[in-house]
Amino acid sequence: MSKKPLILVTNDDGITAPGIRALISVMNEIGDVVVIAPDSPQSGMGHAITINSTLECNKITIDSGPQIEYSCSGTPADCVKLGINEILQRKPDLCVSGVNHGSNSSINVIYSGTMSAAIEASIEGVPAIGFSLLDYNWDAEFSHIKKYIKNITLKALEEGLPKGITLNVNFPKLNHDMIKGIKVCKQADTYWIEKFDKRVNPQGKEYYWLTGEFINKDQSEDSDEFALSNGYISIVPVKHDLTDYESINKIQSWNL
Amino acid sequence: MSKKPLILVTNDDGITAPGIRALISVMNEIGDVVVIAPDSPQSGMGHAITINSTLECNKITIDSGPQIEYSCSGTPADCVKLGINEILQRKPDLCVSGVNHGSNSSINVIYSGTMSAAIEASIEGVPAIGFSLLDYNWDAEFSHIKKYIKNITLKALEEGLPKGITLNVNFPKLNHDMIKGIKVCKQADTYWIEKFDKRVNPQGKEYYWLTGEFINKDQSEDSDEFALSNGYISIVPVKHDLTDYESINKIQSWNL
Repeated sequence: MSKKPLILVTNDDGITAPGIRALISVMNEIGDVVVIAPDSPQSGMGHAITINSTLECNKITIDSGPQIEYSCSGTPADCVKLGINEILQRKPDLCVSGVNHGSNSSINVIYSGTMSAAIEASIEGVPAIGFSLLDYNWDAEFSHIKKYIKNITLKALEEGLPKGITLNVNFPKLNHDMIKGIKVCKQADTYWIEKFDKRVNPQGKEYYWLTGEFINKDQSEDSDEFALSNGYISIVPVKHDLTDYESINKIQSWNL
Repeated sequence: MSKKPLILVTNDDGITAPGIRALISVMNEIGDVVVIAPDSPQSGMGHAITINSTLECNKITIDSGPQIEYSCSGTPADCVKLGINEILQRKPDLCVSGVNHGSNSSINVIYSGTMSAAIEASIEGVPAIGFSLLDYNWDAEFSHIKKYIKNITLKALEEGLPKGITLNVNFPKLNHDMIKGIKVCKQADTYWIEKFDKRVNPQGKEYYWLTGEFINKDQSEDSDEFALSNGYISIVPVKHDLTDYESINKIQSWNL
């Protein structure tokens, strides 16, 4: 039996995306790799799960690497649930998700299929890391960030992640020699102002495309947005207990 | 111009669900109501948004109430984005989501379209409350919880919610005289063990249905699960900053 760590790899851009192929190649240097990833792009799926429909999951071969791969009809969170509870013979030692084509920093973590997959693994007791590159292009350059991905992953396996905590790692869109280092950060306080592009279809019916403008209200220097815009890789430790403990007393004082 | 509060109502069970019809009837007693809700059930959609497809949104009339209603092809979070940024003439004073047919307590908050809609409103600066009843039946009884919904909503409008905080309100499946009161709680530490029901379709191809067993690891008496199982309505103040501040120093000490 292999003594190497068992690593579950997933993403939200789909199993053929260059970002996940780069991530698989790094993980093959570290452990025994099983890929369970969506068969089509699932960006913006958040923590959606498939409960009113069925799921398909098929073993496939995409490249000549040693990893085992499954292509799944569901969301990123579905892939992780299927992996941990149905497909893998034992609980994985780590789940990595990505590398996402585009940012999952600040409020984007909420909408992100990539991060929700990683958070799902954490909920189920599997240490997890989501990786994202601030470049939406399909042909984005991933080769120079591989050494950082490997270092962060090895360190997480060696030190262990705090219980229930997922790392949200974002890489700036910079060449290797422009990256200044790594900062551990808080999630910046940001939001999107949506602009709906209203159109009329050939049958005369109105429809919308969602577009938006990103607003960063956060001026603090310990945020992920600050780190990224100053040439650093950002790491935010993320939790799935959404309770705002500071507000409990205030709401209690309402005497409902 | 009306001096009544402008209230945006949405849900994830779809605009015709009895739960949202009950919620609309309560909100009509409090303010000017605009309903923007999914045209079909969206349970388990989490914080999914529609970015690779288009959205439709149509004004409709469902009952004789004074509210204005729109049926939307998107997810619950899409409905809120459309409402705040495109359809409403001004920023609403409150967004309420639900009443969900089924629990959104503890970890269910993460998968919940109902709660994600409310959280989306909070992200966009609109105070928000999600309401859920621990009864999955379509013909669940909502009449006896209306007075609680009205009181909580009026108190939230009067006192104001802490900035960025959403209330997650869950009602136990109990008759009126069995409900002991309201507890402000933390999110219980729970998870689901998935059981995939594997079947074979008429063409011989395997597929899965997601099912699961709910596991409550949390024995603490200040959790929402404890309150609900002891006859109380639970209110958890929920935030969208997922940073685990306690872990920042630990990850920093890795010296990446």
